[in-house]
Amino acid sequence: MMGKLKVYADRMSQPSRAVLIFCRFNGIDFEEIKVDISKRHHLSPEFREVNPLQKVPAIVHGSFNLSESHAILVYLVSAFPGIADHWYPSDLYRRAKIISVMDWHHSNLRHGAVNYVINTVLGPATGRPLNPKAAAEAEKVLLSSLSKLEDIWLNGDGHFLLGVSQPSIADLSMVCELMQLEVLDEKDRSRILSPYKKVLQWIEDTRTATNPHFEEVHNILYRAKRI
Amino acid sequence: MMGKLKVYADRMSQPSRAVLIFCRFNGIDFEEIKVDISKRHHLSPEFREVNPLQKVPAIVHGSFNLSESHAILVYLVSAFPGIADHWYPSDLYRRAKIISVMDWHHSNLRHGAVNYVINTVLGPATGRPLNPKAAAEAEKVLLSSLSKLEDIWLNGDGHFLLGVSQPSIADLSMVCELMQLEVLDEKDRSRILSPYKKVLQWIEDTRTATNPHFEEVHNILYRAKRI
Repeated sequence: MMGKLKVYADRMSQPSRAVLIFCRFNGIDFEEIKVDISKRHHLSPEFREVNPLQKVPAIVHGSFNLSESHAILVYLVSAFPGIADHWYPSDLYRRAKIISVMDWHHSNLRHGAVNYVINTVLGPATGRPLNPKAAAEAEKVLLSSLSKLEDIWLNGDGHFLLGVSQPSIADLSMVCELMQLEVLDEKDRSRILSPYKKVLQWIEDTRTATNPHFEEVHNILYRAKRI
Repeated sequence: MMGKLKVYADRMSQPSRAVLIFCRFNGIDFEEIKVDISKRHHLSPEFREVNPLQKVPAIVHGSFNLSESHAILVYLVSAFPGIADHWYPSDLYRRAKIISVMDWHHSNLRHGAVNYVINTVLGPATGRPLNPKAAAEAEKVLLSSLSKLEDIWLNGDGHFLLGVSQPSIADLSMVCELMQLEVLDEKDRSRILSPYKKVLQWIEDTRTATNPHFEEVHNILYRAKRI
């Protein structure tokens, strides 16, 4: 017996949201434990026991602990019964492509989006000053990544990454990343995203495919925007 | 029949070296196709057919193509028979930890090492000027990553990541990343690496475990250093 899965998360963190939506959508019995980054809870001695790297999300499942959202999603697919195959296909070639796009994500879409948002809006909440020069560099990475998403990864007839008709853990991870742009000024968000029609449609398709959980877990972002 | 595996690589690229060493060590029958980044061959129309993202390494195996070194290594483990289990253990928990450390690698060790080396030595060869401020920022990320490698990932009795006694694809990927530091001035390399005794020993252990292939594939770096 593994005991109930514990998910340590801050819903303001994109990869935390991806893990929470995945667990809820797939009916995994879990306990959500809030680690409030703005209050530095991720730096507490208690959380260091859970994840010595001091990052969310992290999980504890029995005596097993794990960090990094992609690794957590892959683990959950195998550790819990009945997860539909489209989330992380057992087919060697489809799975390899999903790993490839998730690896690409780290230094491209995530790198650009995180650094853009931190340097234009969210920095002060985590103790970092806004930095317009870093924001400009991050925007270049973000726009180049959006263009590759549009022309390469979303190329094909399906609604989701790699041209398939049902979402994988890669769709969930990367759409949650882009949802972070919700906290931007609307003009700014529109300037960045509106040239990428397939990307915009893909965000909607992933939202629809995982609702109501997608919206419920993202509510915190919409509230942050209104403040 | 898949046809012979083709590996498109530049040995000056760390992830290219990891894939080449893995293939050679495991007796995979493959053809190495050089994509010379310093001559912009990765931007050619021919290579764009292989990998629209225009990065090395990339593989073609029959009609299947794939980029991103971690995804390639995971694919090779499944696609070729007889690869020893320690490279990518089938055990759910050990595999999850290996995915976790490889995900961590992207935005930490790789991010720091690549940007440090590009901004202190290699930039001009790829058309980018050296940038001391970016180098200083990259050094912070690199040192913080080395410290986490030393204290967290290399914690344990074994010689390799996660405290085990035989290398995984994560060891190979991350040691190849650190080998890039060979092109630095020796004083600079020593300043960065010498405080991390476990890391230094781990580099040697990974080299020994994968020789003679490790040294043969790294020869290009040693030559670059002498020029």
